[in-house]
Amino acid sequence: MIHHGERVDDLQFKGLKMIQDPKKFCFGMDAVLLSSFVELRKKEKVVDFGTGTGIIPLLLHGRFPEATFTAFEIQKDMADMARRTVAMNGLENSIYIVNEDLRKAPQILSHLSQNVVVCNPPYGKKGTTIPSQTNSVALARHETDCTLAQLLKSAQLLLKGHGRLYMVFPANRMLELTEGMRQEKIEPKRLRFVYPKATKAPYLLLVEGVKGAKVGLKWEKPLIVYDDRGEETEEIRKIYHKE
Amino acid sequence: MIHHGERVDDLQFKGLKMIQDPKKFCFGMDAVLLSSFVELRKKEKVVDFGTGTGIIPLLLHGRFPEATFTAFEIQKDMADMARRTVAMNGLENSIYIVNEDLRKAPQILSHLSQNVVVCNPPYGKKGTTIPSQTNSVALARHETDCTLAQLLKSAQLLLKGHGRLYMVFPANRMLELTEGMRQEKIEPKRLRFVYPKATKAPYLLLVEGVKGAKVGLKWEKPLIVYDDRGEETEEIRKIYHKE
Repeated sequence: MIHHGERVDDLQFKGLKMIQDPKKFCFGMDAVLLSSFVELRKKEKVVDFGTGTGIIPLLLHGRFPEATFTAFEIQKDMADMARRTVAMNGLENSIYIVNEDLRKAPQILSHLSQNVVVCNPPYGKKGTTIPSQTNSVALARHETDCTLAQLLKSAQLLLKGHGRLYMVFPANRMLELTEGMRQEKIEPKRLRFVYPKATKAPYLLLVEGVKGAKVGLKWEKPLIVYDDRGEETEEIRKIYHKE
Repeated sequence: MIHHGERVDDLQFKGLKMIQDPKKFCFGMDAVLLSSFVELRKKEKVVDFGTGTGIIPLLLHGRFPEATFTAFEIQKDMADMARRTVAMNGLENSIYIVNEDLRKAPQILSHLSQNVVVCNPPYGKKGTTIPSQTNSVALARHETDCTLAQLLKSAQLLLKGHGRLYMVFPANRMLELTEGMRQEKIEPKRLRFVYPKATKAPYLLLVEGVKGAKVGLKWEKPLIVYDDRGEETEEIRKIYHKE
């Protein structure tokens, strides 16, 4: 069940475990922060675009055990590893890993069928970021193929009326995301900035968009990662279940 | 020089004084924060849209004495009061008060003639905010007449290539402003959120847009008004020249 080079990490949360391969791609803080930002109602149907290790459905299952997740991952070996993580946790009835391009999701799951879409996308614009060392990381971290517009189009087709899209995105590219969402009639509604410190610029944006909703943003208090002394803030420790 | 009901306030900055009428409209913190966000180079030509008491050109003159300001104010009595404030400070050669609709500014000053436009606009959308008590306050505080789109069009016509627009706007209406700016090819470049406290949502956005610039935001560290104990932060005290 565990392949050569892989390791099993204990997520320290509801007994969940995760297979990761440090030579390929390990989940980062952005995925954890996005998961903590998502709010689900009972039995909602949730799609994760580009699930990688499967971290987002796993963490969300821990908080919302009645929801069901369909997680798309284009890379065969990553999808296979995520599927083994799901099996190791006995969650085959809650989390489905689909080794397909997310652009095919509306066709595979049918239009207007989902309550929620979640996505921690690769941030770098084609050619604008430092290329990663291995092909797996490049695919997971860069928009080598699927564009933001295509991703939002897929979300729009999948979501029911008033369905929600949750994303994390670089603060400096905020307008690209919000304008792209509005073009697909997914209105940015709830937003939160992530600051490395209270004295630094924000580097990540967490967004909840609602399909077909009225205009009007609701900003939340800042999410600050490190305090003045360089230690994790209480909120970050809570998100990581360290207290 | 001082009319009945008016008072003279000492700005505690470079010996500047200001005539205000508390029954009409007094400048607020938003104007002071916007002024502190503006950066001018020597001898730049600056236009202020809806100057009210004249607070923004006055504070900017204090920091950038070589710049010249043309400040539009549609209300006759406010324009008259601002003009008397300018005279009281002996700044008739630096600050010109024009009692005209800001939509006429490109025609009056000629197109492509200005380095900078500054604006602390009325925030409330027509009919969406509580109407104020007197007509003066309503005009200064609400978009009873000029729309945001018209204001941005005027700025666009006035500004030279790579001229800058500085505005303060409610955080919850951010996208209206940024999308409106982009429609006029004024690219939002430098942004800063104002938070009442580090644990609260941001309520104001400070924006610097550059005409004809490339896409890409630069967020600044948060501007926090009150600290944990409810006292003004060091930065706010510095902005108000209290230390």
